[in-house]
Amino acid sequence: MAIQTLLTERFKLRHPVVLAPMALAGGGKLAAAVTAAGGLGLIGGGYGDADWLETQFQAAGNQSVGCGFITWSLAKQPHLLTNVLAHRPAALMLSFGDPAPFSPSIAAAGVPLICQCQTMGHVREALAAGAAVIVAQGGEAGGHGMSRGSLSFVPEVADHLKANAPDVLLLAAGGIADGRGLAASLMLGADGVLIGTRLWASQEALVHGNHHKAIVDSDGDSTLRTTTPDIARRLDWPAGFTARIKRNAFTAQWHGRESELLAHADHESAKYSKAFTAGDTDQAGVWFGEAAGLIHTIEPAQTIIERMVSEAEQCLRRPMLG
Amino acid sequence: MAIQTLLTERFKLRHPVVLAPMALAGGGKLAAAVTAAGGLGLIGGGYGDADWLETQFQAAGNQSVGCGFITWSLAKQPHLLTNVLAHRPAALMLSFGDPAPFSPSIAAAGVPLICQCQTMGHVREALAAGAAVIVAQGGEAGGHGMSRGSLSFVPEVADHLKANAPDVLLLAAGGIADGRGLAASLMLGADGVLIGTRLWASQEALVHGNHHKAIVDSDGDSTLRTTTPDIARRLDWPAGFTARIKRNAFTAQWHGRESELLAHADHESAKYSKAFTAGDTDQAGVWFGEAAGLIHTIEPAQTIIERMVSEAEQCLRRPMLG
Repeated sequence: MAIQTLLTERFKLRHPVVLAPMALAGGGKLAAAVTAAGGLGLIGGGYGDADWLETQFQAAGNQSVGCGFITWSLAKQPHLLTNVLAHRPAALMLSFGDPAPFSPSIAAAGVPLICQCQTMGHVREALAAGAAVIVAQGGEAGGHGMSRGSLSFVPEVADHLKANAPDVLLLAAGGIADGRGLAASLMLGADGVLIGTRLWASQEALVHGNHHKAIVDSDGDSTLRTTTPDIARRLDWPAGFTARIKRNAFTAQWHGRESELLAHADHESAKYSKAFTAGDTDQAGVWFGEAAGLIHTIEPAQTIIERMVSEAEQCLRRPMLG
Repeated sequence: MAIQTLLTERFKLRHPVVLAPMALAGGGKLAAAVTAAGGLGLIGGGYGDADWLETQFQAAGNQSVGCGFITWSLAKQPHLLTNVLAHRPAALMLSFGDPAPFSPSIAAAGVPLICQCQTMGHVREALAAGAAVIVAQGGEAGGHGMSRGSLSFVPEVADHLKANAPDVLLLAAGGIADGRGLAASLMLGADGVLIGTRLWASQEALVHGNHHKAIVDSDGDSTLRTTTPDIARRLDWPAGFTARIKRNAFTAQWHGRESELLAHADHESAKYSKAFTAGDTDQAGVWFGEAAGLIHTIEPAQTIIERMVSEAEQCLRRPMLG
């Protein structure tokens, strides 16, 4: 038994599961583990560090992996795209910004372009840039995103693709952590899922043990969307994007007092960075989404993916039709 | 063919579809139409008007319907519960506030209590009050609610019920407008769905034609969560609850300037009320959710429900397992 979709067919995967390219947390080891488990692993290109990226592609070894970038950040270091394309990635994903400037070189390299979208406007932009795969990301997601809920956004994007770009595939993202979420996404019209938080909570993720303990101890009510970690890190995120992180002492102090945080950014930036590196779960961002309420263990990526798929198969076989 | 769940079994329904008790929009005619179509219709008790409620129960005629109240508002006029229970409603739903003060008289009347929840804390409160059905409402929903996304909140509540209250049923709400959303909700572990926006956009709803035209013309990005309509109506909503309505001139003027709106509430309240009654879609709240992007027609409730169920059956039969 296996779940077969256009995604598994076109990307030659055993399972319709793609790893979200998580900045900092998603290195080559995790990406390779996801590919080895039958999904598609994407290295998190994040804010762009050429040496780190090189190391992570080496860490992925012989496994076929792709890479994702934060689009507005890539625009500051466009040579990183050239570096990554030289690795012949299985796919290149762009999130948070207009993909148009980068799509010609991705197409020229024969690499499928995946575009992550948070609004219908983003979807139109992504299609104009020639995306092969659209990710409809709901606001439940951990890390950066916007506010649309996955349950209505995914089918709305599916309808748009059916009418305007029937060959383009669709991944659901945001709030999916187990087989129920995978099966639900397929019902909504997705060809597969993009998994962040659930694989952030895997043994291969580059995540501090304290942060892993925090997600196991949290329910799905424990997070919020905020710009505070970006202000504290002096990252110039475009308006409209927020980050979903755990509520903690840091967010209690600064969420709603963003202009004050900005005024103290010099001092707070150093403090945030030190706390993050030390695995302090109170004084820095702990980057997970509302799926936290569905996550109770830190396991190998393979275990997570195999259980997700097997649960989804059970859901899809459930005899509800009388 | 039919979709059979514990909800259809216990409430003797043909379809696992419940009408959200929408204040102002959901009268007896709509509730009766939903029941006649095989679902369960709930009259929107809203802010409590004894005469209006009486009229709506009359309008429902011989159909078995229930009723829903805004809990914190009902607390100001508890006699309305006595009035409604005298009609032997099929169910009594409470949303937005602690149901405990009202559950004993609902239980004494032998009426099933449905509690709508937006957080895990609400779920625990509802179970303590003896709810027979929990509604897990995601922030995609139109009208009042909070911010959790349906796709992760519904399975988290399902897990909680399985562990703590296995006899309690679960409805998914927020962002569900067609058979894909119904099928997805069943995958997530719900026994059925609570439908607001899609049935707000029905011929039987008490909604101005201009407002109906607005939803047909809108996509799912067209809404926001805001407290502005409540301030303008001088309704004393508890902290944390916001209303999802269409973005329009009213929200552009006041969202983010809530304290200023409060200071002008005397003048603005009269203006809002006049605009709402006149069907002005710019100067008053237009009450629909993110499912707007899935809604392109205003039809009879029966047509909507039959298509939703038939689409869901198709989704559930889709051969994805190889």
